Amino acid sequence: MNPYQAPLAEMKFLLDKVFDAPQTWASLPAIAENVDMDTAVAIMDEADKISRELLHPINRSGDEQGVVHQDDKVITPDGYKEAYTQYAEGGWVGLCGEPEFGGMGMPKMLGVLVDEMAYSACNAFTLYGSLTAGAALCINAHGSDELKQKYLPMMYSGEWSGAMDMTEPQAGSDLRGIRTKAVPLDDGSYSITGSKIFITAGDHDLTENVIHLVLAKLPDSNGISLFLVPKIKVDDSGALGESNHVTVGSIEHKMGLKASSTCVMNYDDAQGYLIGRANRGLVCMFTMMNYERLAIGIQGLGTSQAAYQMAADYAKERVQGVAAGGSPTGATSDPIIVHGDVRRMLLNIRVLTEAGRALSVLTGQQLDIAKYGEGEAQAKASRYVGLLTPVAKAFLSDRGLDAAITAQQVFGGHGYIRETGIEQLVRDTRIAQIYEGTNGIQAIDFLGRKVTGDKVAALTEFVNECTAKLATLSHADAAHKAKVTDLLQQLILVASEINDKKLEKPAVINACAVDFLDAFGHVLYGYFWLLMSDAAVSHADKEFAAQKRYLSDFYINKMLPKAEYHLAQVRAGDETIMNMPESLF
Amino acid sequence: MNPYQAPLAEMKFLLDKVFDAPQTWASLPAIAENVDMDTAVAIMDEADKISRELLHPINRSGDEQGVVHQDDKVITPDGYKEAYTQYAEGGWVGLCGEPEFGGMGMPKMLGVLVDEMAYSACNAFTLYGSLTAGAALCINAHGSDELKQKYLPMMYSGEWSGAMDMTEPQAGSDLRGIRTKAVPLDDGSYSITGSKIFITAGDHDLTENVIHLVLAKLPDSNGISLFLVPKIKVDDSGALGESNHVTVGSIEHKMGLKASSTCVMNYDDAQGYLIGRANRGLVCMFTMMNYERLAIGIQGLGTSQAAYQMAADYAKERVQGVAAGGSPTGATSDPIIVHGDVRRMLLNIRVLTEAGRALSVLTGQQLDIAKYGEGEAQAKASRYVGLLTPVAKAFLSDRGLDAAITAQQVFGGHGYIRETGIEQLVRDTRIAQIYEGTNGIQAIDFLGRKVTGDKVAALTEFVNECTAKLATLSHADAAHKAKVTDLLQQLILVASEINDKKLEKPAVINACAVDFLDAFGHVLYGYFWLLMSDAAVSHADKEFAAQKRYLSDFYINKMLPKAEYHLAQVRAGDETIMNMPESLF
Repeated sequence: MNPYQAPLAEMKFLLDKVFDAPQTWASLPAIAENVDMDTAVAIMDEADKISRELLHPINRSGDEQGVVHQDDKVITPDGYKEAYTQYAEGGWVGLCGEPEFGGMGMPKMLGVLVDEMAYSACNAFTLYGSLTAGAALCINAHGSDELKQKYLPMMYSGEWSGAMDMTEPQAGSDLRGIRTKAVPLDDGSYSITGSKIFITAGDHDLTENVIHLVLAKLPDSNGISLFLVPKIKVDDSGALGESNHVTVGSIEHKMGLKASSTCVMNYDDAQGYLIGRANRGLVCMFTMMNYERLAIGIQGLGTSQAAYQMAADYAKERVQGVAAGGSPTGATSDPIIVHGDVRRMLLNIRVLTEAGRALSVLTGQQLDIAKYGEGEAQAKASRYVGLLTPVAKAFLSDRGLDAAITAQQVFGGHGYIRETGIEQLVRDTRIAQIYEGTNGIQAIDFLGRKVTGDKVAALTEFVNECTAKLATLSHADAAHKAKVTDLLQQLILVASEINDKKLEKPAVINACAVDFLDAFGHVLYGYFWLLMSDAAVSHADKEFAAQKRYLSDFYINKMLPKAEYHLAQVRAGDETIMNMPESLF
Repeated sequence: MNPYQAPLAEMKFLLDKVFDAPQTWASLPAIAENVDMDTAVAIMDEADKISRELLHPINRSGDEQGVVHQDDKVITPDGYKEAYTQYAEGGWVGLCGEPEFGGMGMPKMLGVLVDEMAYSACNAFTLYGSLTAGAALCINAHGSDELKQKYLPMMYSGEWSGAMDMTEPQAGSDLRGIRTKAVPLDDGSYSITGSKIFITAGDHDLTENVIHLVLAKLPDSNGISLFLVPKIKVDDSGALGESNHVTVGSIEHKMGLKASSTCVMNYDDAQGYLIGRANRGLVCMFTMMNYERLAIGIQGLGTSQAAYQMAADYAKERVQGVAAGGSPTGATSDPIIVHGDVRRMLLNIRVLTEAGRALSVLTGQQLDIAKYGEGEAQAKASRYVGLLTPVAKAFLSDRGLDAAITAQQVFGGHGYIRETGIEQLVRDTRIAQIYEGTNGIQAIDFLGRKVTGDKVAALTEFVNECTAKLATLSHADAAHKAKVTDLLQQLILVASEINDKKLEKPAVINACAVDFLDAFGHVLYGYFWLLMSDAAVSHADKEFAAQKRYLSDFYINKMLPKAEYHLAQVRAGDETIMNMPESLF
C-alpha cells in the first residue's frame, strides 16, 4: 500500500484560485498579520509530511490494538503518546487558536485543509486534537477571562486536552432529559454530580489533564447550563493539584475508531466552573458543536480522499481481464482501471471528494469572515455558516461512507481483508454520520431552522449569489451553467413550498429533510464543479485543467441528476411516510 | 434485544397467494410427491424455531470469538459444532437435495425462505451448510454416478461439508490465470497441486471431511477443469482413509463473518476426480456458482429482515423528542417512531425487504420449474433463471448493506456499539456484494450476456409477462399500474439502445451495467408491490391487507423514482466515464 499523499495541488488551487484566500485574508486584519499564501503553502507542506510520516504509520496498528481500560486508566495504543506529543509540540492543536493565549491564529479556511490531511492519515488520532480545539473555541467564546487565562494556553499547547460531555443514557438527540446536577458552592464554583456516556477522548494517557465541558442542570431548574470540569484540579498558579472526582466508568467497544477512547464518565461532587450564563448552556455548547460538526464532516472528507488514493492505486496495479474492445497495450491482461465499472466507481469518489473539499473550504472561509470580519460582510457570513454547517456535517460524512464502501468494492475480495486497510476506513468513518447530531438531525436543523426558519431568506440570498457567480464564468459549458442555475432556483421553489406547507403539516419538515439536504448538496457540488473547472483553465499545468474539465463533465452528466431525484422526493411529501399506523411497523 | 422472529405471515402469503406455490407444485410431479402447503408451513414453522433457538444465540458470541487457526486445525467458535450437528441431523443441509441420495427433495421456492431465516439468524453459520448444498448440487448435476453415490449421501446428511475452490492470488474475477495443476494418474484420477485463496469453509471442525470442488488446468491446456478433491481420502466402502494432502495455509482476518472460516488452501499432490468434461470446468462450476449467487443474495435479504426487526423494535421503545405538531398521547416524550425521518428509514428497509423476498421466491420458483419441469415451460424458466440470478445476487446484497446501515442509523450512537449487534450485520453482509462475483460482475453478466446476449429477447419476454399480469390486477391503483407498466417498457427500450450501441462502443456495457441492473431491480420491485398489495386485499387479516397497501403506496411514491434516475444514467452513456486518461486518475 502506498503511503498517504495529501492532494496539495488541489488544496492550493482551491485556496488561491477558487475561493481567493489572499483577497479574503487581506480583508481581515487579524488574519492578515498571521498568514499569506506563502505561509499557508509552507504549513500545508508540513501538514502533508506529518500526516504521512507521523500519523498514518499508527493508523492500522492502533486499530488492531485499540484503547484499553485497565486499573481505572485508559491506555491508548503503542505510538499514540509519542505521536501526540510531537503533534502538540508542532503547534497543530492550537493552529487556529487565539495568539493571545498561545494559538497560532491561522484562518479556518486553512485549518480545514490541515484537518482533512490528518483525518485522511488517521481518523482516530485526529479526534483527540479536534475535541481539544473545539473545547478551547467554546471557552474562548463564552468563558470568563480567568478561565481563559488558566486553561487556553495549556490546551492550545496540547498539554491538556478537551472533551464535550453531553449525552446521558436517556438523553441523546433530546437533551431535555439530562440529569447531571450542578449545585452552587460558596466560592462561586459548582459541585457536579452525574454520568455521561459516549464521551470521545473522555480519558486517555496522551495528556496530563482533560478539560471537560459538561452540560448539567442547576437545582430546581429545567434549563441546561455548561460547566468546565477538569479531570485534575488546577490551582491558582496553574499547577495540577488533586483529583477532581472525574472517573471513567468504562470504555465502549465499537465498530471502528478503536484507537479513540469513548468513555462513560462519572462525576461525583466534581468541582466545575460555569461557562456563559446559567441556563444558557446549549447556546455555548453550540459554539463547540458547530465547530465539531464541520470537523466531523471533514472526517468524512478525509476518509473519502484516503479511500480514493487507495482504490486508484490498486486499480492501476491490479491486472485482471482485458479492456472491452481489446487491450489498449495489446496485453493479454490489463489493469482493472480499463474497465468502465471500475472507472465509474473511482470517478464517483473523486468528484464527490473534490467538491466536498470545496464545501469544506467555503465553510471555513465563512467562519473566518464571521469571526474576524465586520459589518454586513460579517453578518452575511454568519448566515452562511448557519446554512452550510449542517450540510457540511451530513453531506460530507454521508459521502465519506459511500466513498469508503465504493473504494472497498474496487478491491474485490481483498477489500474485505483487514490487512488491506480499506475496511478500516468503512468502520472508522461510519460513526461520522451519527455523532455530533445524527445526519437526520442535521437535515432537520437545515430545513426546519436554517432554510425555513427565516422563510427561505438566507437560502435565497446564498443561492442568488451562486447564480450571479455562475453567470460570470467564461469557460464553463453553457448548457451545464443553465442546468445548475435552474436547479439552484428549484431549491428556492421547493423550500418555499415546504415553508408554505409546514404549519398545516408539521411532519413535513422531519419527513422530507434528508432529501432536501441531499438535493442541496448535489446542486451545490454542481456549482463547485463549474467554479473549479472554470478556474482551472488558467492553471499553469494544462493536464490539471484538462482533468478538472473531465471531472466536471462527469459530475454534471452522472451525479447532478441525483439532485432532481431528491427534489422530486421532497415534492412527493410526507403522506406515504406518516400514514401507516405505528402498530403496523 | 428481542430474539429473531421469522416473518412467517409474509412468507406464507408470498408462497400461497402471490406466486401460487400449490399450482406450481401440482405441475411438477417430482415436487408434488414431497410437499404441499401444509408440509411447507410445517417446515417454515420449524425453520423459524431453529433459527431463533439454535442459530441466533451463537451469532454474536461467534463474532466476538471468531475462527482460530491453530496447529494446522481450524477451530470454529464455541457452540458451532453442537449447533451444526443438530442442524444437519434435522435434515436442513439436504433440504432441497435429491431424495435418491438422502436429500429431502424440497422445492427451492421453499428452500429460499428457509435460507433467509437462517441468514437472518446467523450469517456466518449458514454459509457452511450453503456451500455444502451448492457443492452437492454441482456433483449431482455433473458428477459420475460413482462420485454421486460416494459423496452425496454424506453431504446431504451434513456429515461432510463442501467448498468451492476457484480464486488464486493472480486469478479472481478473471479465472483465465489460474495455475493449479491437475496431472492424470493411471487409475483415472488426477494429482492436484496448487494454492487457492478466499476459500469459504475451506476447513473447520464441524465435519469429518471437507469435499472441495477445485478448478485446475490439465497439462499443456489453457482450459479449466473441475475436480472433486476430498480433504481426507474415501475408500471404496465409503470409509475415511488417509490424508489427501489438502492443508490450510492460513485463515483470513476479515471485516466481518468472523465465525466463517476463510482459508488459503494448499494441494500438494492431492488426489482429485474429474467432474464433467475436461476443459469444461467453468460450465460445471457455474451450476454451483448460480446456486451460490442466489444464496448470497439471500444472505443480503436475511440481513435486511434482521436489521428491520431490530430497528423497528428499537424505534418503538426508544423515547426521545416529541412528535411534530405535538405528542399523539400527550406525553412529554414520544418513541422515536413518531418522527418522519425515522419512519422514512424503517419504511425504506421494509419495502425493499418484502419486495426482495418476492424476488427470492420468484427465482426459487423458476429454478424449480427449470429443474423439474418439461417442454416450453422448462425452457422459459431456464431463461428466467439466467435473467434473474445476477439480479438476485447483486440487488439483494446491495439492499442488504443499505438496510443494515440504515437500521444502524435508527439506533443513533448505540448503533456503533458492538453490544447492540446491528454493526455486526453491516460487517457481516458487506462481503455479499463482493464474493461469488462482485456486483459489478453480476451487472455485466446481466446486461452483457443475459439482456443483450440474445438481443433483448428474454428480457422482452419476461417484461411482457409482467405487463400482462399487471393488467389483470383488479385492486391496484390505476395510476400506479400505468407507472410501473411504462417503466417496464422503458427497460426494453433502454436495453435495445444499449444493444444497438455495443458493437460500436464496446465499453458501454461495462460502464452502464450497474445502473441498468439497479433500474431493473427498482422497476421489478414496483411490479412486486402491486402484485402483493393486490393479492393482500383478499387476505383474512384486514390489517395485513391495509399494511401491504401502505407499503405499496410508499414504494411507488418514494422508491420507484430511483428507477428513472438509473435509466437516465444508462442513457447518459459511457463517454464521461471512459474519456479521462488513466494517468489523470
